[in-house]
Amino acid sequence: MEISVGELARRLDGIVHGDETVLIENAQSIAKAGPRDITFGVDELNLRLLKTARPGAIFVAPKTLEHALQNYPDRTWIVVKDPMGAFIEVLQLTRPQRSRSTIGVSPLACIAASAVIGPDCNIYPGAYIGEDVVIGAGCDIHPGVVISDDCRLGDHCTVYPNAVLYPQIVVGNRVIIHASAVLGADGFGYRFQQGRYNKIPQLGSVELHDDVEIGACTTIDRAMIGITTVGEGTKLDNLVMIGHNCELGKHNAFASGVGLAGSVTTGDYVICAGQVGIADHVHIGDKAVIGAKSGIHKDMEGGKTYLGAPATEEQDQFRIQMALRKLPELRKTLRELETQVAALTQRLAEATEPKDANRAA
Amino acid sequence: MEISVGELARRLDGIVHGDETVLIENAQSIAKAGPRDITFGVDELNLRLLKTARPGAIFVAPKTLEHALQNYPDRTWIVVKDPMGAFIEVLQLTRPQRSRSTIGVSPLACIAASAVIGPDCNIYPGAYIGEDVVIGAGCDIHPGVVISDDCRLGDHCTVYPNAVLYPQIVVGNRVIIHASAVLGADGFGYRFQQGRYNKIPQLGSVELHDDVEIGACTTIDRAMIGITTVGEGTKLDNLVMIGHNCELGKHNAFASGVGLAGSVTTGDYVICAGQVGIADHVHIGDKAVIGAKSGIHKDMEGGKTYLGAPATEEQDQFRIQMALRKLPELRKTLRELETQVAALTQRLAEATEPKDANRAA
Amino acid sequence: MEISVGELARRLDGIVHGDETVLIENAQSIAKAGPRDITFGVDELNLRLLKTARPGAIFVAPKTLEHALQNYPDRTWIVVKDPMGAFIEVLQLTRPQRSRSTIGVSPLACIAASAVIGPDCNIYPGAYIGEDVVIGAGCDIHPGVVISDDCRLGDHCTVYPNAVLYPQIVVGNRVIIHASAVLGADGFGYRFQQGRYNKIPQLGSVELHDDVEIGACTTIDRAMIGITTVGEGTKLDNLVMIGHNCELGKHNAFASGVGLAGSVTTGDYVICAGQVGIADHVHIGDKAVIGAKSGIHKDMEGGKTYLGAPATEEQDQFRIQMALRKLPELRKTLRELETQVAALTQRLAEATEPKDANRAA
Repeated sequence: MEISVGELARRLDGIVHGDETVLIENAQSIAKAGPRDITFGVDELNLRLLKTARPGAIFVAPKTLEHALQNYPDRTWIVVKDPMGAFIEVLQLTRPQRSRSTIGVSPLACIAASAVIGPDCNIYPGAYIGEDVVIGAGCDIHPGVVISDDCRLGDHCTVYPNAVLYPQIVVGNRVIIHASAVLGADGFGYRFQQGRYNKIPQLGSVELHDDVEIGACTTIDRAMIGITTVGEGTKLDNLVMIGHNCELGKHNAFASGVGLAGSVTTGDYVICAGQVGIADHVHIGDKAVIGAKSGIHKDMEGGKTYLGAPATEEQDQFRIQMALRKLPELRKTLRELETQVAALTQRLAEATEPKDANRAA
Repeated sequence: MEISVGELARRLDGIVHGDETVLIENAQSIAKAGPRDITFGVDELNLRLLKTARPGAIFVAPKTLEHALQNYPDRTWIVVKDPMGAFIEVLQLTRPQRSRSTIGVSPLACIAASAVIGPDCNIYPGAYIGEDVVIGAGCDIHPGVVISDDCRLGDHCTVYPNAVLYPQIVVGNRVIIHASAVLGADGFGYRFQQGRYNKIPQLGSVELHDDVEIGACTTIDRAMIGITTVGEGTKLDNLVMIGHNCELGKHNAFASGVGLAGSVTTGDYVICAGQVGIADHVHIGDKAVIGAKSGIHKDMEGGKTYLGAPATEEQDQFRIQMALRKLPELRKTLRELETQVAALTQRLAEATEPKDANRAA
Repeated sequence: MEISVGELARRLDGIVHGDETVLIENAQSIAKAGPRDITFGVDELNLRLLKTARPGAIFVAPKTLEHALQNYPDRTWIVVKDPMGAFIEVLQLTRPQRSRSTIGVSPLACIAASAVIGPDCNIYPGAYIGEDVVIGAGCDIHPGVVISDDCRLGDHCTVYPNAVLYPQIVVGNRVIIHASAVLGADGFGYRFQQGRYNKIPQLGSVELHDDVEIGACTTIDRAMIGITTVGEGTKLDNLVMIGHNCELGKHNAFASGVGLAGSVTTGDYVICAGQVGIADHVHIGDKAVIGAKSGIHKDMEGGKTYLGAPATEEQDQFRIQMALRKLPELRKTLRELETQVAALTQRLAEATEPKDANRAA
């Protein structure tokens, strides 16, 4: 596909600065864009990559235009309200993905007689659907997926290959579950009695609300009693662990490697960067942001950014880290000061003793 | 199901303080229990949740009763020796799980002719059992499980969907392996030669002793030679990594995200909290407890609690952490002290010089 | 199998010091070797294990021989240029693995009509091969593997059970993908708009070059645009996360638990120890070594070793860690110094005041 910059601008409600006739074939990241690619500039820092890159055209926001024209005068720009949004539209135009298959319910899937499958679903070969499962409309259940007895999925869900739902899991609408994710394994709960760990029955369940996305190899344990919950719109990256009885709020975003022990609760809009760990029974308030690798062992107020293990507010951690880097130097200063004080003490003794001697005289 | 507090107390050998006629329908956690729920109180701190919750009745231990009656006088208590145990019994009474299916060996499972399956096993559709595999009595092998050639499982094991056993893995009795766990993948061993990593053949195996439980997406690598071993009764949470040639003792408990490099050995009753990392060839002694996110790079004596990366004994780490928080302040103090010492030095010089001058006079 | 030390030495081009007639049945690690086992000694430190072990014979390098003969005079040694290499040869001799099966393409695999399978492949029962997939010669595709539409594999690849390739993944020759690994899941990319995370389409792909090995439960996300790349000969351990648009160089080695956010690039011969985290858009130079549990948030020059979170050069981190351990003590010293300075100040005041008084007199 080939489209002129002028035509693109018309379609996306943009204004061209530069050559309207440039032909665009593809959308590319700014660093890799060539003369037939369109890209987008996020901010002034990002535009610096134009020093070495020669894209055919660049989407830019009105607020960045002046800087763009001044610093990179010989380029072609399309000014739009939302450069990344425009870019994504072009991306979808130039790289159409395979349209959704319509294979229907494969005879090579293993589906219990009591299961109810909604209209317009694709159930791939090798998928397993247990007793009394209910699946809504327009779902894709990929090969090797296991949906155990009594699970219930809403409409337009996608479950990627080899993901596993234990029994009784409840999934909302438009939920995406990536490959090899595991929902509803037993919580890690034991009683230590007579020198052995005896299993506490894990009789609860897991519930994912609407528009949740679960990453590959992420595990969400079933509650002991009650329900481990992931709130509406919350997104979990790959290899995340959510312990039993956790209750995540709406629109959280957890990066890869995050681990929550049991009974953690979060408010809405909580962000955890990679490899964060949160101890059991902790509450994280609305809009808290937890920096990468932080360890949280107590409740954290919302609206703040935390960092470190054990975590503190970010600015305190920055101060600690800066002091830490200077710590070897600080030790040296302290040793010098000790020497000075010792010398001073000595000199003072010398200075005062003769005087006393004089007095005595 | 509905049962009176009096009847419950009789069944569980407890003594009622309060209203015997209250009808109980369910068991719930203390924070969520309503007037038809029974719950249990662990200790005085835990009972504080009763300020907002109104359970139908509460199991309580004899030692907590006096505090309970004094502080929450208008509640109904059942005094039992083991409140959590009693609670679990009610839980199982009121929420019976689906009884174990008896589907037998599914014709839709793929089972090698040379495999031997014990009596009373369920082999689900889509399971794969390789050549010369031996499976004991009463095992459940769920859909999508792959048990490769020459594996041997004991009696009453459960292998959840899509778990994978590489060839020659040995599993004891009553072992539980959760979904997508991987036992016996090649250890991460290479020789670096002529600028390339050449694979060291991983010819050993993995052995899980009786009553082990392995979490979802946990991986235990096969030994290079010898056997990667998980001792009796040891429990591993989800997303744990056990490297090749590790030998874990009995009744260890490792939380999610723990990673052991190769050839780590542990004694009995070792506990690792979440996201702990242990370097290769390290030994952890009996009953050592490793705090969350700790990094261990040398042998650790048993019977102690360790924390930090690099880890120290817990109390040392607490001291370090406390000092660390005060570090910015300490820097300030040190700078002030430098100023004071400089001033003192100056004043001392001034104070002694004139005197010398006087002397000279 | 039984072979004399003399015969072994002849086959492996070694020279015997000790008893040529000793019969060897097996190869074992030095700590576990018995009188019918051969083992190998890496260095003097490693040989110390001989104080308690009695192997039948020990491979040793010329440079270690003198130390060996002096310190452990009554043992049998075979001197070879490459003791570990010789050991591995014996290992493969004494423990032949099952030879590669030749089951061909199982009728119980599910293979799209448009897929092309090269000669001499084993496609196991329960494997799923999508539309337009191309698989080279001599590949093993194990049970439960899902290779989605449009994937392309080279020759002599092994894909272990339940691994998942999303659509359009490109895999080179001699690549090994372990069980439950996931290649090509959507990158973790959203736009936050009107209080919700809206998915950014992930239209790119993943490419693994020749001789790559991917560990169990490791996940490599597809690029948003472009290709997430793993360079030739690079080895990833279990439970590693490679974010979208990362580009790893040749012959990297990443241990278990390593997590890379989006768009990280690495040079050649980069090593990451366990549980390292690297922030998005960071570049790691050739031959950089990142210590266990380090957190990297900015570009790191090649050829150096880094440690800590946030990471510094290793020797700086050692200095910081040493100072940190002495921090509680340092605080004490500082407090003592404050007291001394206060005392000095007081004494100086006393010492100088009377003099002034004298003057006034």
